[in-house]
Amino acid sequence: MWSPDRNSGTTLYMQIAEHLAQKIRCGEFPPGSGLPSERKLAGQLGVNRSTVVLAFSELRSIGLIESRSGSGTRVSLADSEETPKHTPNWSQYADDSSMVRNPPFLRKISEALQQNPELIDMASGQLSGDLAPTQEIAEIMSQNRPMSYLGYDNPQGYPPLREALVRYLNRHRGIDTTESSLLITSGSQQSLYLIIRCLLSPGDAVAIEDPSYCFSLPMFQTAGLRVFRLPLDQHGVQPEDIRQLYKKHRIKMVFLNPNYQNPTGTLLSEERRRKVLDIASELALPIIEDDPYSLTAYDGEPPAPLKALDTTGSVIYIGSFSKIAASGLRIGWMAAPRAIVERLADARQQMDFGLSVIPQQVVATFLDSPQFVPHLERLRRELQFKRDMVTAALRREFQGRAEFLEPRGGIHLWCKIGADYNENRLLEQSIRNGFVFGPGSVYGSEPGCLRLTFGRANAGDIDRGIAALREAAEKLDLF
Amino acid sequence: MWSPDRNSGTTLYMQIAEHLAQKIRCGEFPPGSGLPSERKLAGQLGVNRSTVVLAFSELRSIGLIESRSGSGTRVSLADSEETPKHTPNWSQYADDSSMVRNPPFLRKISEALQQNPELIDMASGQLSGDLAPTQEIAEIMSQNRPMSYLGYDNPQGYPPLREALVRYLNRHRGIDTTESSLLITSGSQQSLYLIIRCLLSPGDAVAIEDPSYCFSLPMFQTAGLRVFRLPLDQHGVQPEDIRQLYKKHRIKMVFLNPNYQNPTGTLLSEERRRKVLDIASELALPIIEDDPYSLTAYDGEPPAPLKALDTTGSVIYIGSFSKIAASGLRIGWMAAPRAIVERLADARQQMDFGLSVIPQQVVATFLDSPQFVPHLERLRRELQFKRDMVTAALRREFQGRAEFLEPRGGIHLWCKIGADYNENRLLEQSIRNGFVFGPGSVYGSEPGCLRLTFGRANAGDIDRGIAALREAAEKLDLF
Ligand SMILES: Cc1ncc(COP(=O)(O)O)c(C=O)c1O
Ligand SMILES: Cc1ncc(COP(=O)(O)O)c(C=O)c1O
Repeated sequence: MWSPDRNSGTTLYMQIAEHLAQKIRCGEFPPGSGLPSERKLAGQLGVNRSTVVLAFSELRSIGLIESRSGSGTRVSLADSEETPKHTPNWSQYADDSSMVRNPPFLRKISEALQQNPELIDMASGQLSGDLAPTQEIAEIMSQNRPMSYLGYDNPQGYPPLREALVRYLNRHRGIDTTESSLLITSGSQQSLYLIIRCLLSPGDAVAIEDPSYCFSLPMFQTAGLRVFRLPLDQHGVQPEDIRQLYKKHRIKMVFLNPNYQNPTGTLLSEERRRKVLDIASELALPIIEDDPYSLTAYDGEPPAPLKALDTTGSVIYIGSFSKIAASGLRIGWMAAPRAIVERLADARQQMDFGLSVIPQQVVATFLDSPQFVPHLERLRRELQFKRDMVTAALRREFQGRAEFLEPRGGIHLWCKIGADYNENRLLEQSIRNGFVFGPGSVYGSEPGCLRLTFGRANAGDIDRGIAALREAAEKLDLF
Repeated sequence: MWSPDRNSGTTLYMQIAEHLAQKIRCGEFPPGSGLPSERKLAGQLGVNRSTVVLAFSELRSIGLIESRSGSGTRVSLADSEETPKHTPNWSQYADDSSMVRNPPFLRKISEALQQNPELIDMASGQLSGDLAPTQEIAEIMSQNRPMSYLGYDNPQGYPPLREALVRYLNRHRGIDTTESSLLITSGSQQSLYLIIRCLLSPGDAVAIEDPSYCFSLPMFQTAGLRVFRLPLDQHGVQPEDIRQLYKKHRIKMVFLNPNYQNPTGTLLSEERRRKVLDIASELALPIIEDDPYSLTAYDGEPPAPLKALDTTGSVIYIGSFSKIAASGLRIGWMAAPRAIVERLADARQQMDFGLSVIPQQVVATFLDSPQFVPHLERLRRELQFKRDMVTAALRREFQGRAEFLEPRGGIHLWCKIGADYNENRLLEQSIRNGFVFGPGSVYGSEPGCLRLTFGRANAGDIDRGIAALREAAEKLDLF
């Protein structure tokens, strides 16, 4: 007898729905006939009853079956026409996609968080509500005069925001740029997507950090790129590795996150920054500098970005307000040669026609407001405080059995507990204990590591969270 | 001697910049040497001086050359190192892209509008500022309490907006759906992009209307699809054509814009709607119903959408607030089988991580507010008034030499003037006369037609605009 395939990319309920739909279409269950009860079917197929409930509801939503209370579920009566009716094989359409899916762990985590909002969240890469300038944003919104014209945005982004960003980049990052070299994007995510999809072609080789930002990995795969790794030590990537990859594989681009890297929290040393730029200009190799975290430097003095040191024009700089204000603003940008900005702006028109002007206006006002710098100062203090809480809790709970580097900025801490463990089991046990973290494999790393994001959790929950993690590790006999 | 290629996809100034950069790198202009003056170079290359100015500024922005007032432009001195420095060949990266560019006419129009904001704009597919609910939106923004949490959005979109949309679709479009079958997108544009990129594969065949929405055409090409056409008459597409295309080419999807179609303004007749659905269900063929205009029906009674008549689940329905509220909100949505919505939500995370919550909250509030229906009523009245102005002006100015169908909703009028004419010359002459329109070829149509969008132009300018068009046509001896 048929049973669903638990290793398939398609959810169980969709497999069951599709299976039943086929039986209905081929006449095994003719119009008007009754279907087995949810309970019975669940038993036959070896799945939870709730899975069958979902499958039935999918079939109901496309009109293939009908349920009446009391009389169970039956196949809908076909209209009186001769030609049989078919629903498109939607799950086939969904499965045929060349878009690589996000790692199952990420889905598992987000489902766990949706089911239980009380979970202590050290998995999500964002700020907690109290760290975001919610009040400042609400004030700006309430004071703003109506926009005179709320039409499609300029393809490169709202001009007053680009003007404010030119000032911001000059003042806070030492980067000299112009409005026409800036493209406003839906966070760094969209900047990365545009670069990967529009400037590279299938088969091209690129270099990325190892480990690296989880939501960029499927993008590289979908684009058909050959991805090579630059291992990180405590001072970031080794510049000579870039040259080696170029020699061997003719890499066409290097993606770096030099400041308080996601997931490791490391900072690329000043010396290596200069070396990376030398090698890039020697090889005419573009560097993509993804820099969402630099302004969280706890001592208030982030190192100069590659872009500010770049004299040959090798660097595309990507920034974002997600980690220094609020990820729900969806405002990021890139500073790039004009030819690139124009190209990507044109491509972006076809994807989404640009961003809403409303959050862009809010951010432009916030950037130039007297509230901006005090907000940053508070953010840094609070993040440092949370960092101290996590490291103290790790020392207390794990007694030296957790190795980690103390980050000096950012929101992530990378931690090694036990050499090798079953990530899935540790995650599941943690979730049962009320805690979620980022399993190392999601970032493409070797086993045994995990990412603890202290930006998102409330300070008051951190101790309990780390204790829950330790309990989970003990339960699995990790030590 | 080298000269730029006017038929290349790369702009003249970028070609010149790249050419000079090569000469500099290969040592023809060594570090510190002077470059020819802008005027001289312009003469040699046969281009405007302003083109050379742009090329120089590109080279300056990447540090390759330096200009000092008085002493002209010279090649930057290399640092004292041995290895020569190279800028990545950025324009090569921009050109290698597999993303098809938007038609040059669209760029020409948007440049003309940027250069001269006084142009009477019957080219842009959007509403004029006075038709958008700017005041209502400003009021909602000023009354809103701060968001408690401004984090990354739910992957399918802000839940309260999806709840409001379920009510909206039921009330205004007769569509029964659920929050979990809805995906909020950055306008219909992103819905189309997601469907085209994530549910279809290169080589797949699809059917689209002829003519059709200009910003969707390059998307189909970029995705490597084989595109087949469904010619329109005054009642929309011929359903039997769909079957023929399926037989011949195994089309995998049909894209329709049944209500007040862009660009023709036609309405798919009720009879044909049912026929289209019969054929779709017979062939298990998905229909993508792109419906941004239906609520502009001047008589307030838009026909039922395909989605509302669809009993087999063949239709993905796409909607937007761009044409009934403001395109700068960037709020659209699709109603689709859950398997599709989940698939596309996952893919969208990788592209841009979802929309800003702020405009979603604004739209959710507006939808449920007592201002929404009065706004729609006013919009319809004003659009009908503008439609009447355009048709009257066309009759007066063109005296029967302009053929058109009177649209009963929407913002576009499709018009045939003269059998065959040089679109580029007509557009340029019109721009000189202070008027822009949409040249027919942009919509993939046969020559001789143009799109006049009366939604965007101010009512007071329509007469003058159509007169300017007539003068341009006369100047070119079109009649
Ligand atoms: C290194 C890095 N790049 C990009 C992003 C995407 O962030 P956003 O699109 O919100 O700016 C993140 C988010 O975690 C990140 O850590
Ligand atoms: C038929 C059609 N589809 C989609 C769009 C895209 O509009 P938006 O993304 O603003 O909803 C338009 C805009 O003109 C259109 O006419």
